[in-house]
Amino acid sequence: MRWTRRLLASALAPLAALRAAGAAASMPGPPPLALRAMGSFHVGGREAVISGRPVKEVALRPGGPPVRIDPNGTYQVEAMYVQWFAPAEERGQAPLLLWHGGGMTGAAYETTPDGREGWQAWFLRRGWRVHVSDAVERGRAGFAPSPEVFEGEPLFLTKDVPWERFRIGPGPGSYAVRAALPGSQFPVGAYDALMRQFVPRWTTTDEAQLSAYRALLERVGPAVVIAHAQGAYFALRAAQERPAAVRALVLLEPVGFGEAPPAVLAGVPVLVVHGDHLGQDPRWAAIRDRGRDVVARLAASGGRAELLSLPERGLRGNGHLMMLERNSDAVAEAIQGWLAAQSLWR
Amino acid sequence: MRWTRRLLASALAPLAALRAAGAAASMPGPPPLALRAMGSFHVGGREAVISGRPVKEVALRPGGPPVRIDPNGTYQVEAMYVQWFAPAEERGQAPLLLWHGGGMTGAAYETTPDGREGWQAWFLRRGWRVHVSDAVERGRAGFAPSPEVFEGEPLFLTKDVPWERFRIGPGPGSYAVRAALPGSQFPVGAYDALMRQFVPRWTTTDEAQLSAYRALLERVGPAVVIAHAQGAYFALRAAQERPAAVRALVLLEPVGFGEAPPAVLAGVPVLVVHGDHLGQDPRWAAIRDRGRDVVARLAASGGRAELLSLPERGLRGNGHLMMLERNSDAVAEAIQGWLAAQSLWR
Repeated sequence: MRWTRRLLASALAPLAALRAAGAAASMPGPPPLALRAMGSFHVGGREAVISGRPVKEVALRPGGPPVRIDPNGTYQVEAMYVQWFAPAEERGQAPLLLWHGGGMTGAAYETTPDGREGWQAWFLRRGWRVHVSDAVERGRAGFAPSPEVFEGEPLFLTKDVPWERFRIGPGPGSYAVRAALPGSQFPVGAYDALMRQFVPRWTTTDEAQLSAYRALLERVGPAVVIAHAQGAYFALRAAQERPAAVRALVLLEPVGFGEAPPAVLAGVPVLVVHGDHLGQDPRWAAIRDRGRDVVARLAASGGRAELLSLPERGLRGNGHLMMLERNSDAVAEAIQGWLAAQSLWR
Repeated sequence: MRWTRRLLASALAPLAALRAAGAAASMPGPPPLALRAMGSFHVGGREAVISGRPVKEVALRPGGPPVRIDPNGTYQVEAMYVQWFAPAEERGQAPLLLWHGGGMTGAAYETTPDGREGWQAWFLRRGWRVHVSDAVERGRAGFAPSPEVFEGEPLFLTKDVPWERFRIGPGPGSYAVRAALPGSQFPVGAYDALMRQFVPRWTTTDEAQLSAYRALLERVGPAVVIAHAQGAYFALRAAQERPAAVRALVLLEPVGFGEAPPAVLAGVPVLVVHGDHLGQDPRWAAIRDRGRDVVARLAASGGRAELLSLPERGLRGNGHLMMLERNSDAVAEAIQGWLAAQSLWR
């Protein structure tokens, strides 16, 4: 019986998402959104020189005549991409930066897989100036010649990985039978829409990514940073290096914490957000414990650090991709409440 | 003396662009922009299975412990990315789709390198529902395992290539001395901002890109398509295959025309737009002549096809990247006038 319902939901959800995104013109929706301005830019990066490589002959079209391609020369590499929207009436007391996690792009904060407005529009409608970015190597940031500039090679996720690793289903084998965790908030019928937004990632580009994030903070900060997973690792490191450029940090299930002493962050309020089912396996339990530990250490050294456990707040069933799940508005509301309590919104 | 002015402009322009994009909040600007809704989606693509490849051991962080990565399995590949904005008051009679050229992403239609609003905002402010996309393999569309799914390897542009190939400077050697064509509209001081938005491209993915463009037209069409260079090649092919899904085609210096008989397009008004300096070298002259020829053939077979030569319209100095150049608003205005004349805007 439960399986029947789940399969039915699976079959219907993509239709609903399609209707919502494609036919927005004809559907009743939220009230109009007044922007003062919108735009985008690339920030950071450097020139890289490649030399000593052989000239290639490449057909620019299958079956076309070969063209001589000399890969040697100077490239512009390792910038990141940022799109921003300024609301007509600004209520946020600083720009709000939304940083994605590993293997993702800024698209994670746009329309949800089930076709609703994501956090980009949610926070914009509440008067925040919102910046959504693609980290170095991801999405519109582009990637550099590899292995010449980016060492190693990109990694790709097979379709089972996010389902089984990000707490949609109960671990290995669950994707094959589309088994979800009890009460999962993930819109399982729209899973393919999630998979379409994953992009490859290198594992050797941390410093280049961090450098561009620093350049972004120097350009638009001081700013509030909401950062997910790998993005939270960069946010914490960037805040430790440039505390004056960060007004607050919201870390969504951060997966690494760096080594800098937490006292450096005494002036920056920090909220660590944890979803549900973190006892699911030893890896998530370790991430949970480390998050609690960092919050305790920051608080002990005089910082304003808090842990927001979504299930303890009554928001049950969230996996690692909380900004994309069915109750994404409620999770945003909880974060917004904390930001308002820090006097960052009025 | 001319060189001094040019160098000075080079030094100052990035500052102006930076100020414009980063500090939009505090600057007087255009009137507010009222949106009914905004969002994004991925469309098209397929599953691809990789098998028989060896399992790898990869450190997810430099110096970190190796993790077992099995590349075999099922991947979601070859979707494209689309971001859309619906104005509160719609005046366009169909959605407007902006398709980028080779090596670029939708960012080409956002803020210009010199920090002004690009065509995305320009057409949105005039009441068009605007869709800006990243083709398969580019930007937020992501790329697939290569060479397993995408044959061959990606190509990258050295910094001299766009300058010398896209009619900013007078051909080979001009980038080294930053020599520009007479009256060039390109904001040469913001050249690095242009280079940051170029992304790698494969040369083997035409059919996958076309397939996703078709899926996009099926989802949001009938639509007006404005398409640049390689994008224009896809637009013409897609329109030949799905004429009922296309209300009008605006082809910005199209670089390929396919082989389908032009009569198929009799019901679709077509505008081919050419910039200045097309006699610059034999390659551009051939592209110019082919453009004229296609317009003549379409018109002869009863189609509504026109050639818009920007210099003949008094808009001089445009290279291949006309949507990014200093007179981008004037070029948009010329296109808008043609669309209105086709009764596609009121």
